[in-house]
Amino acid sequence: MINLDYASTTKPSKEVINQIAIALDEDYLNIGAKYKQAKAIEKKISIIRQGFLSFLGASNGEIIFCPSATAANNLAFSVINPKSKGKILVGAGEHSSVYETAKHLSNMGATVEFIPLGANGKIDLNAFENKLDSGVSFVSVMLVSNETGAINNLKQISKIVHSINPKAIVHTDAVQAFGKIDFSVDDIGVDMLTISAHKISGPKGIGALYSKNIDALRPIIYGGGQEYNLVSGTENFAYISGFYTAAKLKVNSLASDYLKVMNYRKHFLDSLDNANVEYEINGELDNSSPYILNISFKGVRGEVLLHALAEYDILVANGSACSSKKRGNRTLESMGKNKEQIDGAVRISFCANEEYNFAYIAGIFKKIIDEIRV
Amino acid sequence: MINLDYASTTKPSKEVINQIAIALDEDYLNIGAKYKQAKAIEKKISIIRQGFLSFLGASNGEIIFCPSATAANNLAFSVINPKSKGKILVGAGEHSSVYETAKHLSNMGATVEFIPLGANGKIDLNAFENKLDSGVSFVSVMLVSNETGAINNLKQISKIVHSINPKAIVHTDAVQAFGKIDFSVDDIGVDMLTISAHKISGPKGIGALYSKNIDALRPIIYGGGQEYNLVSGTENFAYISGFYTAAKLKVNSLASDYLKVMNYRKHFLDSLDNANVEYEINGELDNSSPYILNISFKGVRGEVLLHALAEYDILVANGSACSSKKRGNRTLESMGKNKEQIDGAVRISFCANEEYNFAYIAGIFKKIIDEIRV
Repeated sequence: MINLDYASTTKPSKEVINQIAIALDEDYLNIGAKYKQAKAIEKKISIIRQGFLSFLGASNGEIIFCPSATAANNLAFSVINPKSKGKILVGAGEHSSVYETAKHLSNMGATVEFIPLGANGKIDLNAFENKLDSGVSFVSVMLVSNETGAINNLKQISKIVHSINPKAIVHTDAVQAFGKIDFSVDDIGVDMLTISAHKISGPKGIGALYSKNIDALRPIIYGGGQEYNLVSGTENFAYISGFYTAAKLKVNSLASDYLKVMNYRKHFLDSLDNANVEYEINGELDNSSPYILNISFKGVRGEVLLHALAEYDILVANGSACSSKKRGNRTLESMGKNKEQIDGAVRISFCANEEYNFAYIAGIFKKIIDEIRV
Repeated sequence: MINLDYASTTKPSKEVINQIAIALDEDYLNIGAKYKQAKAIEKKISIIRQGFLSFLGASNGEIIFCPSATAANNLAFSVINPKSKGKILVGAGEHSSVYETAKHLSNMGATVEFIPLGANGKIDLNAFENKLDSGVSFVSVMLVSNETGAINNLKQISKIVHSINPKAIVHTDAVQAFGKIDFSVDDIGVDMLTISAHKISGPKGIGALYSKNIDALRPIIYGGGQEYNLVSGTENFAYISGFYTAAKLKVNSLASDYLKVMNYRKHFLDSLDNANVEYEINGELDNSSPYILNISFKGVRGEVLLHALAEYDILVANGSACSSKKRGNRTLESMGKNKEQIDGAVRISFCANEEYNFAYIAGIFKKIIDEIRV
């Protein structure tokens, strides 16, 4: 299998699987129990929380483990009281876990406005500043776009927002950034940040919300009071420790992986050129994560290409997997792409742990595109 | 380690750990992706859902996987619109994931009443019938009490509720019943039922809600639309399949395990008698799950006993682990136990996969109780 859909999910590494298997077997006690044997596992979780703060470059704040990055994004939005008057600004190209949560709050009465994207895939900063006023209470803009790889300048965004209202909360969905591009919470100045395990060779079923201050957060699941009484349910130590193992590995190899994947992206595009495949890049290569590439092929429907490639065991995406049931593509639409460009788009996403034969892959693209082009 | 706290959580079996490790390695694709390689995993999940319906003896309805039984209980309560006038009746001894959710809805304006328990640990049916009228819209009563093992007669409860209002929804938290005592959804006639993996030698971090009809359910986590658009977040196939493995094993050995654990309970009590340990059973042995035993020791604080036993690597609970941060014990209070009985209570819970030397255990109890008795 040739997997070019790693932005959708990754294969857990051997180290992660081993850690999960060991934790399931050895550290299975319920940390809510009062005896010291269970408290020993609670201590391990505390150390892991500190480890994540360090990975994120956060000198203060808390890590709240959630059953998914989707749940973490829902938790971030829990600070919003839909009856209050604060203005909520959300990127038009956000992942569905942010977008649908914002829409739900809007339906409940909250004032939500979506920030359009520029042709480069980043939020349009002029449009953003025009929407900003001192009534802004919450801003959510992703660090790296899951559709195009575009990197938003969160440092600038945080600065602008906090200069207008120091109490406003800036949240970023950093699911496609963590372990892949270099950043630190202290540097970008956000108040909340979401990460996911399964995008960095960890398991599906765990994510986390970093929050500088947890006082404003409200429970998303009620019960025994776990995770600061925000996400009740018995702690899943096996996945918490598997997530930690995955994060440690990715943070350690971030710089070398980045260079490797920069080369992958270049070789992939060069190979398409060499195979005489015509394409158009949606977004830009500069200021973009090399892990994700969104390209359109003229006269080709992305979905048809996707299924034809799957027959050769080559995996790509069109639209993000997480919103596959929805029609169209909010990100590309907001970037001003026309219907043909959107229909022709596929998302290519790389993994540093994989070796690719790009000449072979480009050959298959050429063969299929020649067959299916209308 | 001598684990007498299996109602709190269980050790995942080798088969479960192996299945999870294999699924993490082999079936890691995102089932939201459009290519056939991902759809193959979606098919496996469909088969597993059917398997769970069969394990539960449900001739129709749906299985919704949730990140915990706590989340499943929250999802069950999502059918309640706190602004509507329907009366909600909830057992006074419910697990915190039901109790706190009900209290939250009450704070939001819903009409919630708690049904007191009898001295036997079951809901008081007379008090229940007195609270019932045609305005009842939702009833939640656990099948087996996590504190005492008392088995509520859900068949009778469903019948009474549906005779008064056929549209009312009867939900049961069957976390301590599934895989342990024999029941079927079709027989007990409930509309919704919650189960958990980690109480049956599966992993922590997955549960499920059975629902006869999903139309009235509302999302608890917003996003990509997974799990019938009720619990968004990328599907955790590894744990879904691990849960299935655990359930299959427990359902297959249910009858023999039950007899084994009945003997464990008898031998434990006989051994206390032989060691001249005085105790009082909270609840009754008849119509009770043999897996859970709640006993008080006169002049002994349960928490002190718990910590002293932990020094001998013997694990017991006082209060349920899931609400360890709360003072007192709702269940025992509602059963009419006095302060001394409540303070003296410990919960003993067995696992059929374990071998116990009850004479040794009773000897340790005797030694400690003689030392700490005031």
